[in-house]
Amino acid sequence: MAKKPELDDFRVPFFDADKKLKPFDLSAIDPSSKPFSLGSKDEDRERLAAIGAQLDDLQEKLHAQRHRRVLLVLQGMDTSGKDGTVRAVFHDVDPLGLRIVPFKAPSEREASHDFLWRVHSQASAAGEFAIFNRSHYEDVLVPRVLKSIDDDECERRYRHIRQFESLLADSGTTIVKCFLHISKDEQRERLQARIDDPTKHWKFDVSDIEARKQCGAYEQAYENLLGATSTDYAPWYIIPGNSKTHRNVMVAELLLRTMQGMKLEFSPAKESLKGLKVE
Amino acid sequence: MAKKPELDDFRVPFFDADKKLKPFDLSAIDPSSKPFSLGSKDEDRERLAAIGAQLDDLQEKLHAQRHRRVLLVLQGMDTSGKDGTVRAVFHDVDPLGLRIVPFKAPSEREASHDFLWRVHSQASAAGEFAIFNRSHYEDVLVPRVLKSIDDDECERRYRHIRQFESLLADSGTTIVKCFLHISKDEQRERLQARIDDPTKHWKFDVSDIEARKQCGAYEQAYENLLGATSTDYAPWYIIPGNSKTHRNVMVAELLLRTMQGMKLEFSPAKESLKGLKVE
Repeated sequence: MAKKPELDDFRVPFFDADKKLKPFDLSAIDPSSKPFSLGSKDEDRERLAAIGAQLDDLQEKLHAQRHRRVLLVLQGMDTSGKDGTVRAVFHDVDPLGLRIVPFKAPSEREASHDFLWRVHSQASAAGEFAIFNRSHYEDVLVPRVLKSIDDDECERRYRHIRQFESLLADSGTTIVKCFLHISKDEQRERLQARIDDPTKHWKFDVSDIEARKQCGAYEQAYENLLGATSTDYAPWYIIPGNSKTHRNVMVAELLLRTMQGMKLEFSPAKESLKGLKVE
Repeated sequence: MAKKPELDDFRVPFFDADKKLKPFDLSAIDPSSKPFSLGSKDEDRERLAAIGAQLDDLQEKLHAQRHRRVLLVLQGMDTSGKDGTVRAVFHDVDPLGLRIVPFKAPSEREASHDFLWRVHSQASAAGEFAIFNRSHYEDVLVPRVLKSIDDDECERRYRHIRQFESLLADSGTTIVKCFLHISKDEQRERLQARIDDPTKHWKFDVSDIEARKQCGAYEQAYENLLGATSTDYAPWYIIPGNSKTHRNVMVAELLLRTMQGMKLEFSPAKESLKGLKVE
């Protein structure tokens, strides 16, 4: 019998400052595999709903405590399913406790600061679950592929990212980072579907075709950043994402395990309220 | 047969600059009435789910167009159900298109600006549905009850609020404002429930008891602001809220009608994409 897959098998090895920077080899993980599937789509959807209810409960405790914080970073190529993951995994989680932060190309004002300036201002507050839909990792992707930053600057940015995430972690933020991994064929199908359906045209931009032509360079930039920024306080996980159902259930399992590990509980009852009657 | 209730029957009459300021008489609407209930809780929940799916669809179009904006303002006394409304009414709406903004007591920095400064920065962006959980209306409530602003300042604030909301409306924002209306008895029961259940202690603060002692003054402050700031571009609605199920279904009906009135459609298909094949 095959070994049951563990989430840790999909975690990118931690960056080791004593060793030479080692890119993570994405080809080691098959994007069409479904290691966390229970068998059928129906079973997976049932499991997703069950986890959703548990996440909702954990998030209420997080919110009630107003002490710890959670940050989920979602990255992936165009059409890899960042939006869809948020929609499916958080369907049953109270929107009051979530803050979803989409990062687009920086504005002129944002670009006039250091690259972490706009990101820092969006960090999770006490009791908050923040989701970065794209993130500061775009700043070691696009400029890398367009060659507007050189190797040295890129390595400096990796270091600044590690240090920034360590600041967040030291201040009580639990960080999880997911790379949604799809194949080139799957991306073609999804882009084509956006072109063929006029109600999906708003999701499509011709620049997506240009980016696709450079997908080898993007993949390499991802392999570099994954190897350089996976740490014990902010680990990267590779999520096989050709199957949307599998992607959702795996991200949900990962968040469930992460939040269960936080030992979230309601604060003890306030003794001063015992027996208090409202008039 | 009794006349079927209309949403407009619960709309606060519009402020008329030519007439003397007229407070809205809250006692005219029974907080325990259920005008938009279909009969049973089950039927109401079914209706709520059906509206939820329609709101999700409308919100996707809003988001796809990236042009119009929606702003929902939720106000009400402590325990009136602002959080619960967000949770129930938006359960099926994609969290990616929502932004929920809770307003607490202003920070020192916020208080060092005019009272609309922090609010303006949170206004809905193009394609966005923003929900203000409390709002700038707190600034004509608490300071009014505590008498830290006088009549003249309060009237100036009403005027600034009308002008501010007119700026938002002129820039493409559809504004709906709901006052969640509960009775004093209902509030006592809900506060007591928070005291009696330790897992709800985090929602309770002894200042809630102090505020309750002044609820007459708060009610008067509400009646004044409702009369002064209901306009055709940013109307106030009174939501009978002793029944949570009714409250949810009525707010949902109101939002559905409002968004249907916006005539939201996907933008026309992009001709340039016709026949395009992804390689």
